[in-house]
Amino acid sequence: MKSINVGLIGTGFMGKAHALAWNSVRPVFGDVPPVRLLHLGEANDELAHRKAAEFGFEKASGDWKRVVSDPEVDVVSITTPNKFHLEMATAALAAGKHVWCEKPMAPKLAEAEAMLASARASGKAAVLGYNYIQNPAIRHIRKLLDEGVIGPVNHVRIEMDEDFLADPEAPFQQRHEAVNGWGALDDFGVHPLSLLYTLFGRVTRVMCDMAKPYPTRRTPEGDREVEVFDIATIMLRLENGASGYIAVSRTAWGRKGRIAIQIFGGKGSILYDQERMNELQLYVTSDRATEQGFRTVLTAPHHPPYDRFIPAAGHNLGFNDLKIIECRQLIARMQAQPSVSIGFEEGILIERTIAAMARSFQDGQWVEVPV
Amino acid sequence: MKSINVGLIGTGFMGKAHALAWNSVRPVFGDVPPVRLLHLGEANDELAHRKAAEFGFEKASGDWKRVVSDPEVDVVSITTPNKFHLEMATAALAAGKHVWCEKPMAPKLAEAEAMLASARASGKAAVLGYNYIQNPAIRHIRKLLDEGVIGPVNHVRIEMDEDFLADPEAPFQQRHEAVNGWGALDDFGVHPLSLLYTLFGRVTRVMCDMAKPYPTRRTPEGDREVEVFDIATIMLRLENGASGYIAVSRTAWGRKGRIAIQIFGGKGSILYDQERMNELQLYVTSDRATEQGFRTVLTAPHHPPYDRFIPAAGHNLGFNDLKIIECRQLIARMQAQPSVSIGFEEGILIERTIAAMARSFQDGQWVEVPV
Amino acid sequence: MKSINVGLIGTGFMGKAHALAWNSVRPVFGDVPPVRLLHLGEANDELAHRKAAEFGFEKASGDWKRVVSDPEVDVVSITTPNKFHLEMATAALAAGKHVWCEKPMAPKLAEAEAMLASARASGKAAVLGYNYIQNPAIRHIRKLLDEGVIGPVNHVRIEMDEDFLADPEAPFQQRHEAVNGWGALDDFGVHPLSLLYTLFGRVTRVMCDMAKPYPTRRTPEGDREVEVFDIATIMLRLENGASGYIAVSRTAWGRKGRIAIQIFGGKGSILYDQERMNELQLYVTSDRATEQGFRTVLTAPHHPPYDRFIPAAGHNLGFNDLKIIECRQLIARMQAQPSVSIGFEEGILIERTIAAMARSFQDGQWVEVPV
Amino acid sequence: MKSINVGLIGTGFMGKAHALAWNSVRPVFGDVPPVRLLHLGEANDELAHRKAAEFGFEKASGDWKRVVSDPEVDVVSITTPNKFHLEMATAALAAGKHVWCEKPMAPKLAEAEAMLASARASGKAAVLGYNYIQNPAIRHIRKLLDEGVIGPVNHVRIEMDEDFLADPEAPFQQRHEAVNGWGALDDFGVHPLSLLYTLFGRVTRVMCDMAKPYPTRRTPEGDREVEVFDIATIMLRLENGASGYIAVSRTAWGRKGRIAIQIFGGKGSILYDQERMNELQLYVTSDRATEQGFRTVLTAPHHPPYDRFIPAAGHNLGFNDLKIIECRQLIARMQAQPSVSIGFEEGILIERTIAAMARSFQDGQWVEVPV
Repeated sequence: MKSINVGLIGTGFMGKAHALAWNSVRPVFGDVPPVRLLHLGEANDELAHRKAAEFGFEKASGDWKRVVSDPEVDVVSITTPNKFHLEMATAALAAGKHVWCEKPMAPKLAEAEAMLASARASGKAAVLGYNYIQNPAIRHIRKLLDEGVIGPVNHVRIEMDEDFLADPEAPFQQRHEAVNGWGALDDFGVHPLSLLYTLFGRVTRVMCDMAKPYPTRRTPEGDREVEVFDIATIMLRLENGASGYIAVSRTAWGRKGRIAIQIFGGKGSILYDQERMNELQLYVTSDRATEQGFRTVLTAPHHPPYDRFIPAAGHNLGFNDLKIIECRQLIARMQAQPSVSIGFEEGILIERTIAAMARSFQDGQWVEVPV
Repeated sequence: MKSINVGLIGTGFMGKAHALAWNSVRPVFGDVPPVRLLHLGEANDELAHRKAAEFGFEKASGDWKRVVSDPEVDVVSITTPNKFHLEMATAALAAGKHVWCEKPMAPKLAEAEAMLASARASGKAAVLGYNYIQNPAIRHIRKLLDEGVIGPVNHVRIEMDEDFLADPEAPFQQRHEAVNGWGALDDFGVHPLSLLYTLFGRVTRVMCDMAKPYPTRRTPEGDREVEVFDIATIMLRLENGASGYIAVSRTAWGRKGRIAIQIFGGKGSILYDQERMNELQLYVTSDRATEQGFRTVLTAPHHPPYDRFIPAAGHNLGFNDLKIIECRQLIARMQAQPSVSIGFEEGILIERTIAAMARSFQDGQWVEVPV
Repeated sequence: MKSINVGLIGTGFMGKAHALAWNSVRPVFGDVPPVRLLHLGEANDELAHRKAAEFGFEKASGDWKRVVSDPEVDVVSITTPNKFHLEMATAALAAGKHVWCEKPMAPKLAEAEAMLASARASGKAAVLGYNYIQNPAIRHIRKLLDEGVIGPVNHVRIEMDEDFLADPEAPFQQRHEAVNGWGALDDFGVHPLSLLYTLFGRVTRVMCDMAKPYPTRRTPEGDREVEVFDIATIMLRLENGASGYIAVSRTAWGRKGRIAIQIFGGKGSILYDQERMNELQLYVTSDRATEQGFRTVLTAPHHPPYDRFIPAAGHNLGFNDLKIIECRQLIARMQAQPSVSIGFEEGILIERTIAAMARSFQDGQWVEVPV
Repeated sequence: MKSINVGLIGTGFMGKAHALAWNSVRPVFGDVPPVRLLHLGEANDELAHRKAAEFGFEKASGDWKRVVSDPEVDVVSITTPNKFHLEMATAALAAGKHVWCEKPMAPKLAEAEAMLASARASGKAAVLGYNYIQNPAIRHIRKLLDEGVIGPVNHVRIEMDEDFLADPEAPFQQRHEAVNGWGALDDFGVHPLSLLYTLFGRVTRVMCDMAKPYPTRRTPEGDREVEVFDIATIMLRLENGASGYIAVSRTAWGRKGRIAIQIFGGKGSILYDQERMNELQLYVTSDRATEQGFRTVLTAPHHPPYDRFIPAAGHNLGFNDLKIIECRQLIARMQAQPSVSIGFEEGILIERTIAAMARSFQDGQWVEVPV
């Protein structure tokens, strides 16, 4: 069987996650071709070679261009900072490689649109790293919605909160410069949007508020103005008319990886929190009235593809496992098979929604999201 | 000792709660005058007499005017539908009685302003039934904020959700008529505002969204348009500059009495949910990093006035107990002592905020809340 | 209507709880005779009169015998330390009064048996203060069991833990003397037994372990041996053959009023924790496999008699409310009506079980509980 | 660098888990030699070759003896049913291989003792698959105990419950035959013992109860007696004198992978539940009294080796990740470095404790556990 030959650019948090995913996707799923970790790119030769040895790559380069131009490589994982995505993805696609690029697409909407154009021109799979949608719990929520278990959905709330910028005493960082985007809005907001898209489709109207909890930060030269917004709240409408909101914060002490979803329908409700990613909660009115209550459902082998990892219920998948599932879905897309994933085609909708949110904030009024 | 002679109008949910509170406030607290349940008013003589016997009132009248004009009565509890509040409160205050009136003040802002004018003219205590602020857990949160335990607060979220209107098959009710107000915005919104006021002071700017999950409801003559909004979301700013939002829903399946508060500061966070009203959650950065986490703090005698009810920690107060505490605070106000309560003077701020929210929804833009 | 004339002995934690309950039982339930708080007994006249004024009693005595001999008194609440129960209950019953006596019956089994004999001879209602069984959540669990919702029960676990003796630095107290009983076994053990009795009937076999977490305590004269056991674990069998255990501790840091029940049947499971006394958790295999999970059911008006307190679901009863329900059940027993309560007839089974547990500990082997 | 050449016998639940662990241990940890998946053994050639292709093994055999005798193999993973452990482990050790054998050691204590003798004779690393002890949360609990954060521990409770045998209608299985052991006692009991051993050291005295929730099961030929016990409760003492118990059940509806630990000390308490394996709960009396409460601590990079998997807090490890950590610890043992693991030397203590438990059940009295 022809192997899948992988190129990887970047070896940070996401680079390692991609390496682990490529490494495990075949033993976990069994139904994919052999995977060859072929060519690793990093900022310099030394680091590239060291990480290649660790991750099990055959070749290593201090220049990412050698990875995308390697004739043996079939697919390139791009895990570098966002500002490099356009150039790398475009080059890889132009070289006839499939692309697995970390989210978001790019700092500017125009760059993202250009990436989409490259993907369309290439005809190759171009998938974004929206891993939260790969959780069997999320997949099961989608199934419950499709089956109408909670009836038509009329209201949705999503909060995404962490606290890595919550310390007011922490010094000014690059992240606090406007050149990197809006702050929480684009850094975090894309995740809730990926979940909304997966579960419900498009967001149609938005009205955004943003706030700076700490307007200035220390620098060696004195306080400096923080140019981005660590908190954002966005009221919105979905395609089906449902109302809802997204609230995101990077300064929410105590929240580490919270993505709390509340979905309300005519016959019940569903709750989920990423910090307890192996659970979902379901309330249905079909239960007898005196025993209605939110059920804490633990993920289990009957929530595929949990079964590919563990044959026993309640035993917990982890964050890195979601990346393995995402890799499997990428391979499906490479093979032109049905795939639960957010490609550039879908990802651009998320980017356009973020842009509309930002405009609504600037204008102080509701904005329609362009299709 | 001169007793407090109580008049009560209304014997529904809140009427009974007032009766129970007046009945228990002295045995619970010990430090108040004897309470005489003197005169009960209801819609007719039969009901008035029957309930007076149950609740332990000495006199009963089918005409509320006899209660407010009873020369022996010192204070009048008003627990009738909102549309009667203006007339009854004004009459009671004019007759020189203290007034304990259920929230909100009145369906229209102008009526509420008139009630405030009556209260000012009378010089009597005029207190509103915002019982959730009386929870020892809430009082302790206020203390933690005052002490700076979580640092300056920069973001607040409050959700208030129930499901009594969540069934789309339920028929059209009076509640669905616009004459009763906006729907969830005023019916529920006043509670989060009472909590915000108690914990943080005034709301200064608002931007409101509202939604109708079920635009029509059944009547015997066919479907009829629902004129109110069962869902509302309001982005806001507080006096101290903190951002936040309130989200309210009367159609949130599975939510029974949820009032979920999230407070984020520079040094920690506090969480609370009315459905588990005997708990609060506290996260502080002063804990060692490797053991930081939300502490589930159970209310206890060291959270006054829990100690007046039970001398053992973790044994749970109930909803009706909050009304007893509120009654104690009312008596304090009658006695011109410090009181944690929302009188007409403070309540009008809540009513004005609701009005501003409604206008922001109609105008589709942010509105400053008048002082 | 003839009133119920109440005598009360004791004004501590439980004395106040009885006073509050007698005071509220008629306004809450409506279907009982008027209650007259007639005669309060305390250790001296001053305290008696002061508390009588607070609680609303008409008469006060520094000698409890005057309460039990008061010809107007119909029923006597006994809330004094356990060692007085025998004398007071016997005197009250002999004087033709109904008795509401706090648990447990008496420090020694023989005394409890004598109390039972007095009750039988008197023909009066003699009820013990096992308030935890009065929770609408517990009543609903009983209903679910009766309906077979979780199938035949085969295993039960109950833990009851608090931490008021958890501090090893706290000095030696009277509680640490053997004269007061075994320690956690009898002090706490009776509560789980009251719940087991209410839900399942008799315990038939027991095997008990006890432990002293802190074998000595400080006194002004130096360390002194602790004579009681603050921790006990008892393996047991129920009448229906189910296995299970009770575990109790008075030194469990962080536990404030925990009574955690786990019930396992052939078709499902039920969980409950007194610290969240307004919730129960239910797992049933009749739910579709992929959505099975513990449902968190909030108590509501359809769980009687919650409805007598609050007409809205999820709004929380408190500890003192349970005492009001217990008072209502006592009145039912006084009126020879069906009553969910533990009278001396049933209470003696609990006392005999405790005695059997103690013997099993001493003997190091299983003991059959005498009927 | 010399690679570690791996042999693996078995490809079921645990076989796959071992394969995944061997496959990822180097990319995750970085500080171990290259791992070569060399030789896979299964029951027949076809299965062996198919799984070898999936898992990435170079060679495959339908006869496990060829794996253990393969001169290139350094270490053999044994994941077959318990009854094969003695023969396979002995052969592998005799052939000079390190051994990683799934728990428990063997159905009979004498067999386990023989395995220990083989290990001692070989001088090779011989490690058992007790993966739950590898959780960073458990490792952190151990650290907190060592630091004395909750003071000297005086009481410990562990429950381990699942529901895979909870259905009374399910037919008789091989598991129900006495030849396979006692049932829940040995099948589950070894896990809590591995945790007790890791956290506290040896169990010294035991008193065990066992129960059959469903005494008979269906077979095609009619009902048949169940010979094992699906429920066991064991009261115990630890080396340091602390009391406690273990409770295990395979028939606890709703429990999927519950291992609930409660640890009580003189200055605080720690809770943990395997179903929420990325959390621990800590209560300490050093917090101010009015804010004491159980902290929910989410695992994070500062709880090693979480950091080797994910650089962000609260993002969740999974069950399979524990196996990767276990593999890392095995390698440490192979390299004669400090290792948190349960080798045959320690595992025999667990097996002897199980045997003592069984005897205490048969004798109906406490039994000392031999060292």
